[in-house]
Amino acid sequence: EATFSLISGPCQLETLDHARMLAETLSKTCADLGIGFVFKASFDKANRTSLSGKRGVGMDEGLTILSKIREEFGCPVLTDVHDIGQCKPASEAVDVLQIPAFLCRQTDLLLAAGETGAIINVKKGQFLAPWDVQNIVEKVESTGNEKILLTERGASFGYNMLVSDMRSLPIMARTGYPVVFDATHSVQLPGGLGGSTGGQAEFVPPLARAAIAVGCAAVFIETHEEPARSPSDGPNMVALADMPVLLERLKALDSIVKQ
Amino acid sequence: EATFSLISGPCQLETLDHARMLAETLSKTCADLGIGFVFKASFDKANRTSLSGKRGVGMDEGLTILSKIREEFGCPVLTDVHDIGQCKPASEAVDVLQIPAFLCRQTDLLLAAGETGAIINVKKGQFLAPWDVQNIVEKVESTGNEKILLTERGASFGYNMLVSDMRSLPIMARTGYPVVFDATHSVQLPGGLGGSTGGQAEFVPPLARAAIAVGCAAVFIETHEEPARSPSDGPNMVALADMPVLLERLKALDSIVKQ
Amino acid sequence: EATFSLISGPCQLETLDHARMLAETLSKTCADLGIGFVFKASFDKANRTSLSGKRGVGMDEGLTILSKIREEFGCPVLTDVHDIGQCKPASEAVDVLQIPAFLCRQTDLLLAAGETGAIINVKKGQFLAPWDVQNIVEKVESTGNEKILLTERGASFGYNMLVSDMRSLPIMARTGYPVVFDATHSVQLPGGLGGSTGGQAEFVPPLARAAIAVGCAAVFIETHEEPARSPSDGPNMVALADMPVLLERLKALDSIVKQ
Amino acid sequence: EATFSLISGPCQLETLDHARMLAETLSKTCADLGIGFVFKASFDKANRTSLSGKRGVGMDEGLTILSKIREEFGCPVLTDVHDIGQCKPASEAVDVLQIPAFLCRQTDLLLAAGETGAIINVKKGQFLAPWDVQNIVEKVESTGNEKILLTERGASFGYNMLVSDMRSLPIMARTGYPVVFDATHSVQLPGGLGGSTGGQAEFVPPLARAAIAVGCAAVFIETHEEPARSPSDGPNMVALADMPVLLERLKALDSIVKQ
Repeated sequence: EATFSLISGPCQLETLDHARMLAETLSKTCADLGIGFVFKASFDKANRTSLSGKRGVGMDEGLTILSKIREEFGCPVLTDVHDIGQCKPASEAVDVLQIPAFLCRQTDLLLAAGETGAIINVKKGQFLAPWDVQNIVEKVESTGNEKILLTERGASFGYNMLVSDMRSLPIMARTGYPVVFDATHSVQLPGGLGGSTGGQAEFVPPLARAAIAVGCAAVFIETHEEPARSPSDGPNMVALADMPVLLERLKALDSIVKQ
Repeated sequence: EATFSLISGPCQLETLDHARMLAETLSKTCADLGIGFVFKASFDKANRTSLSGKRGVGMDEGLTILSKIREEFGCPVLTDVHDIGQCKPASEAVDVLQIPAFLCRQTDLLLAAGETGAIINVKKGQFLAPWDVQNIVEKVESTGNEKILLTERGASFGYNMLVSDMRSLPIMARTGYPVVFDATHSVQLPGGLGGSTGGQAEFVPPLARAAIAVGCAAVFIETHEEPARSPSDGPNMVALADMPVLLERLKALDSIVKQ
Repeated sequence: EATFSLISGPCQLETLDHARMLAETLSKTCADLGIGFVFKASFDKANRTSLSGKRGVGMDEGLTILSKIREEFGCPVLTDVHDIGQCKPASEAVDVLQIPAFLCRQTDLLLAAGETGAIINVKKGQFLAPWDVQNIVEKVESTGNEKILLTERGASFGYNMLVSDMRSLPIMARTGYPVVFDATHSVQLPGGLGGSTGGQAEFVPPLARAAIAVGCAAVFIETHEEPARSPSDGPNMVALADMPVLLERLKALDSIVKQ
Repeated sequence: EATFSLISGPCQLETLDHARMLAETLSKTCADLGIGFVFKASFDKANRTSLSGKRGVGMDEGLTILSKIREEFGCPVLTDVHDIGQCKPASEAVDVLQIPAFLCRQTDLLLAAGETGAIINVKKGQFLAPWDVQNIVEKVESTGNEKILLTERGASFGYNMLVSDMRSLPIMARTGYPVVFDATHSVQLPGGLGGSTGGQAEFVPPLARAAIAVGCAAVFIETHEEPARSPSDGPNMVALADMPVLLERLKALDSIVKQ
């Protein structure tokens, strides 16, 4: 089994220079450790808790930035799509189209994404049992596209809280596709701050370690040089400066599990 | 406080004649009991569990049928919309645009629906706390549209099961908008049949009675003359022949609660 | 089907005079409305959240008070038992022995209670599915005692919160035994106040109405002339002065459901 | 930080020879790997799902066996107590008294156990938030006993299922006491087999790895040479022959996390 990969970036795109800085730092750290790196950023946050949450730079500017990152750093790039019309243009600028968790059951979006031939990363809905991703997989496969990733990002657990059920990693792996653990969104407290979503950044490292110890193909950890200034998901981000130590430890755990 | 209304119909549109038969029977029953009636049907089921689930008649034919029902029976008509492009045409054919539960956080869809000026019925996501509908309400209100309905349709409770938290009815009512209890989808067993969603039709009447006893503006109960032959949601439908007795009892309970 | 009964009292016994005042007021209200009345009070609170929570008057004094209430007012009396040794003495002073929810799986306690021949009210654990009360029923029945009541008091729903699943009332009724809805403890917020359990008294009336509308044999509603001064469960109690209006409405709903 | 310890044994005591065989095998494996070993067995299963579940050898015979194991193998021994009267005799035969999860709020049992001066292992109830163990800790500490262990064994997640929230390990560790992860009972399916509790033994190794990667003081894994023949918890046991490989891997993960 291969070493795990890191999917990481700033959550929401800010500027080209900011994306460059993060891509450079992260790709170098990953190369030093011998782990794969996928750059992730969103050009639009289409489901912010409240209307006043910042939406992002928009699709045109966003895809331009993302394609430059891909070109300059040679790393695969991932972004999320929210409607059918975004799939084709996004697939020309990036390598991986991500289906947001709330939208994981929207048949037309899955088909439109699958038809681009890009790699499709489906985030399992907070309302979905891990064995039920099989139906989602079949929707994407029906387009002839079998480049699929499946991501655990927490299950609804009462109100305003998610729980990470580590059993879901081996259960989703029964589909035969690589499984990703999203340590950033799993520690969200949905709606927990009233008009925005809170988070528990202190649990990102232990949950990422747990997922690697269970066994997974990739971890998804958003980062920022100053999480408190991130336009979204700040409360559950790992500071960029803390990433090397965390990744080094994950690498060591991964080596043992995949022996 | 006004008597409650019934939102009902066949779930998925089949033919004009089938819609007519249901609209006629239901509108007559409601008129006899002195309760309001809103005809509901979907022209497309965009988030079926599996790809092989029947999708429906499509938007054009569906809206034609729905507008005829509105014209012939003089009752308000409700249908659900799944992307921005459907909002305008649907708003010309029906009175109420419904936002599906999985999509209740999609800002652009809420804004596009709100901008049509139609009544907007937002189903609370299975992953959302009832107090968090306030953020959704503000998204719709930002379009100047204050004709809003909020629907409870069950909260995630472990895997493959929902629970109806009756506290959510008074909590959502704090927004000042009418609250609907969807007794049909609250008894779904999501993914419970593998490739489709199971249901517990036997609990529709007791949960509908409970919601009326708590106090709500409307109940949503899908029906079919032969539930086992319905193209979707059959396992959680009430047979058309059983509706009059159920509604009569709901009317009696409602009268006591709204004294 | 018979009219529902009320199980009510002060939660924790304070003094004989206090118990008398409540028993007199409640039994008169119930007699006026034609509903049954069972006086309930605890002589010991054995599972307070924290050590500093008040425990109560103790078994000897408590049972003396309870037997006087039974004698003076002629109503059945209920109290809870926490270990085997309490079953026999308690069964001589009261009519109904209640098994606390946390203890509903303790075989020896169920057997000891059953063997006294008293009526046994088992509260379903917050961790138990409603269909699993069948195993509990069989433990009690094995003693030859078939005077059993089953009580719903909320199911764990994430952390620090319970949810009342109204489906549990008809599911537990399949055992053939009368089902009680405990509206007081269902609105607890376990551990919600740090060193004690919070509550949401405002939801007692709507949940009690819901349970009656679903159909149940009794409702359990603790009361106090000044809830804020009650030594336990104050945050989820209905004020004594508010009981008549609530009961009158429950009676009206019950009449419709049991027609 | 010290290497983790293993708490293990046959769940329910069968015979002295059987206990000896397990204690010998397990203590040797642990010694070889340099990890601590605590022998665990129950003399009575007081809360079996149904009455027909086997209860065990009883307290007198059980404590005799346990004290012989302690003497012969020199390892600490743990057993669970279910009522006040068992605390004193059990504390004379074993080193650690375990409070079952359903009983973790029973004040008198906690106090009686604490007063023996033995080490007290409290299993967190399936209905309890991890931050609420603070109140339990204070009950035990009030006896002057500060030899406390806290065990995670799964939280209620809908009906008939538990979920292991790995955040609970660092949260409970804030009390300052060692935290144990019970991988055996965390994979129970409570009531899942109708008259008994099912299990998912295949998830014991990945969850144990996850807990070690998060960081904990001990893991609790019940074992049997033939799990299918174990009188209780067979469906969630690891076969004795599979323990060495599992423990070796846990040791390697632990070394990395505690560097």
